[in-house]
Amino acid sequence: MIATTPMSISGRYESSAACSQAVTAGHGIRGLLDRLDPEAAGAEMHALVRELYPIPRSITGDGLRRSLRLLQGALPLTLHEVPTGTRAFDWVVPREWNLRAARLLGPDGEVVVDADRLSLHVLGYSTPFRGKVRLEDLQEHLHSLPEQPTLVPYRTSYYHEDWGFCLSHEQRAALRPGEYDVLIDTSLEEGSLTYGEVLLRGASPDEVLVSAHCCHPSLANDNCSGMVLAATLARLLQGVELQHTYRFLFVPGTIGAITWLALNEDFARRVVHGLVVACVGDAGRLTYKRSRRGNAEIDRACAHVLAHSGEDYELRDFTPYGYDERQYCSPGFDLAVGSLTRTPHGEYPEYHTSADTPELVRADRLADSLVRYLEVLEVLEGNVTYVNLSPKCEPQLGRRGLYGPVGGHSHAVAAQMALLWVLSLCDGSRPLLDVAERSKLPFREVRRAALALEEAGLLGATGT
Amino acid sequence: MIATTPMSISGRYESSAACSQAVTAGHGIRGLLDRLDPEAAGAEMHALVRELYPIPRSITGDGLRRSLRLLQGALPLTLHEVPTGTRAFDWVVPREWNLRAARLLGPDGEVVVDADRLSLHVLGYSTPFRGKVRLEDLQEHLHSLPEQPTLVPYRTSYYHEDWGFCLSHEQRAALRPGEYDVLIDTSLEEGSLTYGEVLLRGASPDEVLVSAHCCHPSLANDNCSGMVLAATLARLLQGVELQHTYRFLFVPGTIGAITWLALNEDFARRVVHGLVVACVGDAGRLTYKRSRRGNAEIDRACAHVLAHSGEDYELRDFTPYGYDERQYCSPGFDLAVGSLTRTPHGEYPEYHTSADTPELVRADRLADSLVRYLEVLEVLEGNVTYVNLSPKCEPQLGRRGLYGPVGGHSHAVAAQMALLWVLSLCDGSRPLLDVAERSKLPFREVRRAALALEEAGLLGATGT
Amino acid sequence: MIATTPMSISGRYESSAACSQAVTAGHGIRGLLDRLDPEAAGAEMHALVRELYPIPRSITGDGLRRSLRLLQGALPLTLHEVPTGTRAFDWVVPREWNLRAARLLGPDGEVVVDADRLSLHVLGYSTPFRGKVRLEDLQEHLHSLPEQPTLVPYRTSYYHEDWGFCLSHEQRAALRPGEYDVLIDTSLEEGSLTYGEVLLRGASPDEVLVSAHCCHPSLANDNCSGMVLAATLARLLQGVELQHTYRFLFVPGTIGAITWLALNEDFARRVVHGLVVACVGDAGRLTYKRSRRGNAEIDRACAHVLAHSGEDYELRDFTPYGYDERQYCSPGFDLAVGSLTRTPHGEYPEYHTSADTPELVRADRLADSLVRYLEVLEVLEGNVTYVNLSPKCEPQLGRRGLYGPVGGHSHAVAAQMALLWVLSLCDGSRPLLDVAERSKLPFREVRRAALALEEAGLLGATGT
Repeated sequence: MIATTPMSISGRYESSAACSQAVTAGHGIRGLLDRLDPEAAGAEMHALVRELYPIPRSITGDGLRRSLRLLQGALPLTLHEVPTGTRAFDWVVPREWNLRAARLLGPDGEVVVDADRLSLHVLGYSTPFRGKVRLEDLQEHLHSLPEQPTLVPYRTSYYHEDWGFCLSHEQRAALRPGEYDVLIDTSLEEGSLTYGEVLLRGASPDEVLVSAHCCHPSLANDNCSGMVLAATLARLLQGVELQHTYRFLFVPGTIGAITWLALNEDFARRVVHGLVVACVGDAGRLTYKRSRRGNAEIDRACAHVLAHSGEDYELRDFTPYGYDERQYCSPGFDLAVGSLTRTPHGEYPEYHTSADTPELVRADRLADSLVRYLEVLEVLEGNVTYVNLSPKCEPQLGRRGLYGPVGGHSHAVAAQMALLWVLSLCDGSRPLLDVAERSKLPFREVRRAALALEEAGLLGATGT
Repeated sequence: MIATTPMSISGRYESSAACSQAVTAGHGIRGLLDRLDPEAAGAEMHALVRELYPIPRSITGDGLRRSLRLLQGALPLTLHEVPTGTRAFDWVVPREWNLRAARLLGPDGEVVVDADRLSLHVLGYSTPFRGKVRLEDLQEHLHSLPEQPTLVPYRTSYYHEDWGFCLSHEQRAALRPGEYDVLIDTSLEEGSLTYGEVLLRGASPDEVLVSAHCCHPSLANDNCSGMVLAATLARLLQGVELQHTYRFLFVPGTIGAITWLALNEDFARRVVHGLVVACVGDAGRLTYKRSRRGNAEIDRACAHVLAHSGEDYELRDFTPYGYDERQYCSPGFDLAVGSLTRTPHGEYPEYHTSADTPELVRADRLADSLVRYLEVLEVLEGNVTYVNLSPKCEPQLGRRGLYGPVGGHSHAVAAQMALLWVLSLCDGSRPLLDVAERSKLPFREVRRAALALEEAGLLGATGT
Repeated sequence: MIATTPMSISGRYESSAACSQAVTAGHGIRGLLDRLDPEAAGAEMHALVRELYPIPRSITGDGLRRSLRLLQGALPLTLHEVPTGTRAFDWVVPREWNLRAARLLGPDGEVVVDADRLSLHVLGYSTPFRGKVRLEDLQEHLHSLPEQPTLVPYRTSYYHEDWGFCLSHEQRAALRPGEYDVLIDTSLEEGSLTYGEVLLRGASPDEVLVSAHCCHPSLANDNCSGMVLAATLARLLQGVELQHTYRFLFVPGTIGAITWLALNEDFARRVVHGLVVACVGDAGRLTYKRSRRGNAEIDRACAHVLAHSGEDYELRDFTPYGYDERQYCSPGFDLAVGSLTRTPHGEYPEYHTSADTPELVRADRLADSLVRYLEVLEVLEGNVTYVNLSPKCEPQLGRRGLYGPVGGHSHAVAAQMALLWVLSLCDGSRPLLDVAERSKLPFREVRRAALALEEAGLLGATGT
């Protein structure tokens, strides 16, 4: 295990009205949800997306570092620096890449593209290059999208030394023959890979992992939205008494997750539930991609929350393609980590192009995503296994004020049904999520019934 | 365990032609079914529903007692009296309630409602009350159905002392201001809770429980129909050689089932299959509600019979709301007890109103319900596990006269398919119901094949 | 166990261009498939069907013997003769039946039917008879199809002594009253039952059984097509290095399979996968009937191949009616033997009639069936369980040339997905067919990825 240099830098992302309001009291995540003002929270989150958007991030370097510092604020976000050359399973932490400038000038000296205007214009991890290049030779260093001719693609070459520019296919088609002036002022040197971490300790050492990739440059939904949601979630949870320990990771995609896993195998073994956060601000419906296990508690909690969200949603089985769930779910770890997104990567036309701007991201969708994440955590936190202490026949609920006095009505209301379901199913063999699934009642209703019955002495929590 | 006082009273419900005819021979339930005249049985059952209907029943008292005596007749129905104050798990047997008269007179002395005309008019378990009450004060003692303004609702107040009247919303709306004369001549005193029991001993001490609630006053489908079906079933089975022991319970709802379970825990543990009988006379399709276990033999037997009934039907999972399956399936017992009804409680508009009259109950539907109950019992009785004694390749059925002599035909007939399925699947690992389910053949066809193969020496019953 | 007389007779079915071409190299079944010329193979197979068609086969006798010799050719097909009277479980090998002539002459001496023209005209296993019979007495010896009045049915009377003729219902209806001259010149004598066997030894003694019934006379699809497909498959596999041992059985239906099982119980226990081949040349879609086990590897392999065939197909559960899978799957053996056919027996109008001619059988459908059989064997042969040797996070595929150098694209191609799926799922707990099922990729793609990863040192085969 290689020692990393933790860097704690006080940032400027101050907690503001809408969210901090919710942090004060400590009545669990349900209280947090009840107090949350989604409109204000969405507006704040969107403002932060706009701030993050222009920063030229990559899997290493100052853009990544600046982005993480922006997230710090009231958040106890620790920055870790892992030196170039550090081995991480089958991988090695690469040299640190920094971009000072990247410009392509035309035959008449006119600016064709400039990474200062849009960081996507430079091929990620381009090696330094300065010189005159004829158009025909330049072509192999150009990347464009013939099928989306007005958009600039996002392209990288992390592990194959190369330089290049990304531009719209329309612009590329209009390039005149002649000599172009290439200025790629980048550095690729010994340095470190940076990642951020927030640890919120709960009653149990069992961990919930929330991981967001932070390496993409000017792409707002993928993944400024995920970085902001994870940071907001961490900030909100600070004020809450927690059952689980929560670990938030802000890592460069693939290599960052692999590096964290390689350096923290012991911690990784403590992860009992996890979510990879990405693409949570677009207008699409929520989509949950199950963990490799397929029926882990996180998988069922997400399915339950989405089923009761009152909105369209999609559930998908695990596939080994996607974001960092690929690493967390690799067979040597097989963690119970799913991914809760809106439209999944690669499935919206703006994906990995210059059209993934802050305008694609909507404040109300960020807030909706935040609420669903909190509802999922509400399930994980409250998914206790109870045992009915009066299991032979129904207890007399009326005597305890839990049942209406006049009999003969046709239907029981939801609150009464929740009491009956909890009494019927809580025999110590299954936690409350099972009761919610079986009864088709929302988890919060089932949990409310369980707490009422516990207070009446009719239900006891088991060791589990 | 508290000793109860068994009371055996010879009743007047004589066995009559249609049903008793079937009782004579002893060739099992299939023989019973083959000999049953459904039309005559339905007519008899409907006549008994009409007799039971006007009796003012409650969870205790003389109306309940009279109803049970009416069912006795040729039936060895034992009446048990459990004293007020007897503890039954979380409950206590309440005081006995008896209704002498309940009348509401209007400002001019006119009769507004009179329980003598319809027992539903008095709130069940009303405390005695006599006096003048102004309309505005009377209102909180009146119960009506704004959404079904012409019907009188059925309402009770067993465990909260109160008095009241039930009337149609139209009548209530027309009440003139003024003073009303209330006469509620009831008694609520030390006494006992009455329930009836029939025990038919079979070869095995394993019990089949059939339970009907008997506490509802003038409601014909719910549950005069169930009381009559259970009594008829018990009477028919008397003449049959039985594999299981059968226990029929005629109990007041909830408190009656709880009391029986509390006083008979040892017997309850012997119950291997059970059905709660209610609402079996309306025109709706048959509905089976599974036991809490969900895949018990009774659940599969009912599903099989309904699937082969040739009529529309519905299967439902257990919910902890309903009739006494709530108690039998409570987690401390978790008995394999389901409920086979026609339209379930609360789902027909006449439910728990003055419209649930003997006219709602149809003789042909009572008979159809009876036939299905018998078919379910046929499965339970005949669900033997056999083992193919010639398991290597097919035995030569033709040589034994079990297969046609000329080969080459395109299709085997059902009887031949039943022989082949029984030989293929009866390897000692599964009973005949599995064979019927897998082959999609009716149980009686599979059983007939099994008996033929057993006679031919090709099949042997296992210990199970 | 009774000793049988093996007879090896060199036949005249020479291996010809289309198929033998494929036999030369030894790169497994995938190589065989890649080299196969389906058009030429189909033409050859159809020619052989036409040769087999007119031979008057039965469950014993010279027609059966001649048919098997015709299949020998380059094939090491051993003929076994099992004497009349040999016991086979509940059965006894019957007397050998041979047909010299069977003719029915009309009142004026005109030929009504003659088995020389169509072997179906004589009831199979007719006892010898010569004499004059009046039409009214003749009727009980005539078999026809009122619902298909122009077709001659196929009928037999193996185990009930009788004689008869089969003719079209139209012809039968036109028979004039009078005396008919019956000549049935058959013999039913001590002799033997003949069956053929090919054994191809592979690396493992575990056997794959391919069984075709050979007893039907002039019926081309049922089962000249199956005999030819099995023989062609055996001939092709001769040139291939095999993992399993393959046993091909050419047996008279029912009694032949039962006899083989009775005489070879020890070999039967080695069968790990098996297929009964019949009706593989008609124009209908492929139909797979599962083994009695229902989810055996052969069942899943066939389902997988059909699902990826790009054509309509059908999967069916086992039923105890059909061809020799009835015997192989009888509970005393319960072998993992399914049946892969085109239109199943009894479900095409020409079934077991004079309309099942070589014209019903299509060369292209024979070839398609052959390809699917080979694809199924490809799965069985290559269904290895691997373990990812770099299971913690993904290995760096790009460094090994297994992944494209430029990142950021929206979708992975199938070949890359296959690599990722194999790495994700191959944890030693499941073979490649599971990976193919879960990933919905064709088996050959998954296997190709596994071989590439194995070569790169990232994957190792387990003992299984």
